[in-house]
Amino acid sequence: MKNRITKLKTPIHFRSWASVGGYEERRGPLGDKFDFCDTSDKFGQKTWEIAEAEMGRIALNTSLSKVGLSHTDLELLVAGDLQNQCVASSTGLSSFGIPFLGVYGACSTCTESIMMLSSFIDSSDNMKIGAALTTSHNSAAERQFRTPVEYGGQRAPTAQWTSTAAGAFLLERGRGDVMITEYMPGRIIDGSTADGTNMGGAMAFSAFDSITAYFEESGEDIHNIDYIVTGDLGKVGSDILKELLSKELPGAERLHTDCGLLLYDMKNQDAHSGASGCGTSASVLACHFLPMLADGKLRRILFLSTGALMSPSSLLQGENIYGIAPLIRLESGKEN
Amino acid sequence: MKNRITKLKTPIHFRSWASVGGYEERRGPLGDKFDFCDTSDKFGQKTWEIAEAEMGRIALNTSLSKVGLSHTDLELLVAGDLQNQCVASSTGLSSFGIPFLGVYGACSTCTESIMMLSSFIDSSDNMKIGAALTTSHNSAAERQFRTPVEYGGQRAPTAQWTSTAAGAFLLERGRGDVMITEYMPGRIIDGSTADGTNMGGAMAFSAFDSITAYFEESGEDIHNIDYIVTGDLGKVGSDILKELLSKELPGAERLHTDCGLLLYDMKNQDAHSGASGCGTSASVLACHFLPMLADGKLRRILFLSTGALMSPSSLLQGENIYGIAPLIRLESGKEN
Repeated sequence: MKNRITKLKTPIHFRSWASVGGYEERRGPLGDKFDFCDTSDKFGQKTWEIAEAEMGRIALNTSLSKVGLSHTDLELLVAGDLQNQCVASSTGLSSFGIPFLGVYGACSTCTESIMMLSSFIDSSDNMKIGAALTTSHNSAAERQFRTPVEYGGQRAPTAQWTSTAAGAFLLERGRGDVMITEYMPGRIIDGSTADGTNMGGAMAFSAFDSITAYFEESGEDIHNIDYIVTGDLGKVGSDILKELLSKELPGAERLHTDCGLLLYDMKNQDAHSGASGCGTSASVLACHFLPMLADGKLRRILFLSTGALMSPSSLLQGENIYGIAPLIRLESGKEN
Repeated sequence: MKNRITKLKTPIHFRSWASVGGYEERRGPLGDKFDFCDTSDKFGQKTWEIAEAEMGRIALNTSLSKVGLSHTDLELLVAGDLQNQCVASSTGLSSFGIPFLGVYGACSTCTESIMMLSSFIDSSDNMKIGAALTTSHNSAAERQFRTPVEYGGQRAPTAQWTSTAAGAFLLERGRGDVMITEYMPGRIIDGSTADGTNMGGAMAFSAFDSITAYFEESGEDIHNIDYIVTGDLGKVGSDILKELLSKELPGAERLHTDCGLLLYDMKNQDAHSGASGCGTSASVLACHFLPMLADGKLRRILFLSTGALMSPSSLLQGENIYGIAPLIRLESGKEN
């Protein structure tokens, strides 16, 4: 089945957003742009798992306080994370008392949750404002997916560094400085590898599938797009995607950039192939791309968080990694 | 924030549905009503995890073939399961090539996914038909959440039996024999217990929260509703819910029934407090309630799959279990 673009019927804008990070995120080239970083990565909590929940809560509260809103103003919360059973989201948000939808899209959670929230606001007459939240935590993710960081396991050159980062987004009906105008869910694409140390390479094909489907379906001229931003393909995945795009959609490869290559200093931060984790695209969207769209420095971008659909068990059982790349189109409300 | 009911703007109906189960499901009182059961629980596969993926694929294909459709007719698939990283859904559905949204709502996945799919069809002009799929597998879930079944761990009297079951639902724009007319996401409610052997009791409060919010918000007369169906509260959770309802919404407790009490013979199947697992409400909806609505034997029901938001790690770390109960309103298209 060919993928379909949905054009939102009602205008929906980003009323507010916030980014929270940890130690490596603060040290990185975008460190100054984060709303808050806790360089202990602990956020005042006793376990890494609860630290992630607290980080999400801080991000959501920050996005609310920036525009003088309270959590009681929110009508819906769509959230996800990488912890088993997505407990960072449920634990962190339980005290808010907001109607909640949990999503699991691996590292594609950011665009998947924004898309779902947009759809709910668009279809519901009595829903006006909601929040999408995405978190990942390096120490919680490492010990769940691989080994506890204390173990000191060696990482392959193709491996990426799971970010300790959160992005919170308040979406509201009506026009504003940054609008979401279209979305397109991703398809599950076989990454043709069972190598858990090369997830960027596995996901590149799903990003390629969504990007080419978007331009085919929309007929959009690539020159109208400022950036095609992927979530966390890292160096290996980005190189694969660029090569594929240069053959199929010549010129599109020059519009491509990847949040996994922006978050850390690729020379000095030991991130190997770059950043990964669903907080990567969420935090880079919040601290880097949304401000540029709000200022009118960017006019319109395609934004695709990229997810690797696998589990430690599925890899041990020899299953391939599947990728998915849900796409949203974001436009500046300050058109010249 | 008070929970909000969304009334669908466009009529959406259940074009088709299918239920698939395993050994215990075939032996249970609804066994005859399942479309297919594999009493080996293996579905021809080498691992329980892939067996679950295959079971989901069979359910989806059965729902399609019942109405002469192919997977290429579907425009969106919303699916979830209980395996870590929801790999049963992604592995089982990768070959379909359908745009995909993964959800995680623990055992609330059935109503959460139906709600999300309805919202997407409602808000998208070019989306007409999609599928929602939910699976759980006893042997895959037991070894992930507790211990492998071969270990023979003793179960507490309050514990439930995770079903090996799948439910697939094709939703299409337009009127039909069974319609979804309203939905309301659940709120995350603290179950006030960290006892992983009593998840029904933990979830009862979230079901109570959604049910009372629905009647308060809608002003609906309880006499207009044939059944209030919860997902898998089991005996312990159902008793708690009934007691709460009898005080707050007198009469509503008599409308209550629970899929976890319907799937197995509570006297002879060693299910302790009843069935659990997200396949429970999905399969019982498909094999029991939808046919009665389609025939006009039932006029309208409220259906709430109930989810316990926790992970094995969060329980070991002493965190409470949180419940959630997204609600959908289903109506017969054959109104007298």
